[in-house]
Amino acid sequence: MQPRISVVTLGVSDLGVARKFYCDGLGWTAAPSSNQHVVFIDVGALVLALFERSDLAKDAHVRADGQGFGGITLAHNVGSKAEVDATIEFVRKASATILKEPADTFWGGYSGYFADPDGYPWEVAWNPFWPLDANGRVQLPKF
Amino acid sequence: MQPRISVVTLGVSDLGVARKFYCDGLGWTAAPSSNQHVVFIDVGALVLALFERSDLAKDAHVRADGQGFGGITLAHNVGSKAEVDATIEFVRKASATILKEPADTFWGGYSGYFADPDGYPWEVAWNPFWPLDANGRVQLPKF
Repeated sequence: MQPRISVVTLGVSDLGVARKFYCDGLGWTAAPSSNQHVVFIDVGALVLALFERSDLAKDAHVRADGQGFGGITLAHNVGSKAEVDATIEFVRKASATILKEPADTFWGGYSGYFADPDGYPWEVAWNPFWPLDANGRVQLPKF
Repeated sequence: MQPRISVVTLGVSDLGVARKFYCDGLGWTAAPSSNQHVVFIDVGALVLALFERSDLAKDAHVRADGQGFGGITLAHNVGSKAEVDATIEFVRKASATILKEPADTFWGGYSGYFADPDGYPWEVAWNPFWPLDANGRVQLPKF
């Protein structure tokens, strides 16, 4: 089984609100195959999907009930502290809730967190030990 | 803000159990920079991180309380129905809980779901409309 995540699907309470946040707010592009039931966004070698939460639970054969922290965070890494600051300011203007203002981290990096309209936490991080390649993808150190 | 997910972090109740499942069970490789507090796995242009759940909530400045479906699913796409079946059999032997046995889907594909030790749902899917590139990454259609 190859190590691979192909899709991250966020179960959302209102697809219109979520689409507005990610596409109009963050400026990301809904793929042409998106429709009124699902939105697909190419996020660099994998797909971010937005889908109604109860439909997603039904698809996965799990109970839809759930509350509080879902246990998963997503991170958007950038190349410098200044880019972390600029990105947090950008998402603040896109109506994101800022969970944590940018600050130095215990592991030697610098990061802030925001929440999307459904409360999913995104970290915006600069990690000096993880260089980004030409496509902006993180590269884990070999040692 | 570039469309990019750099890291998906799963908040886990027991890092040893989660590491055993993903590394010994699924056969994925912990990066050398992993340690007793965190595991990093290269999953193809992004990183899957395993981190203790309450520490993750603390890092994101959210309350750790939460129960039930967390609202996010991950998908692992493969190239055929037979590969879906084989992958579900593989993870079943790795002690995954099978949430949904492989079956044809309403959208014209074929998929099953399993849960990892913390209950996070993974879909194993074949999508005839999303070809995989040489690296196994999904390619969204241009139309």
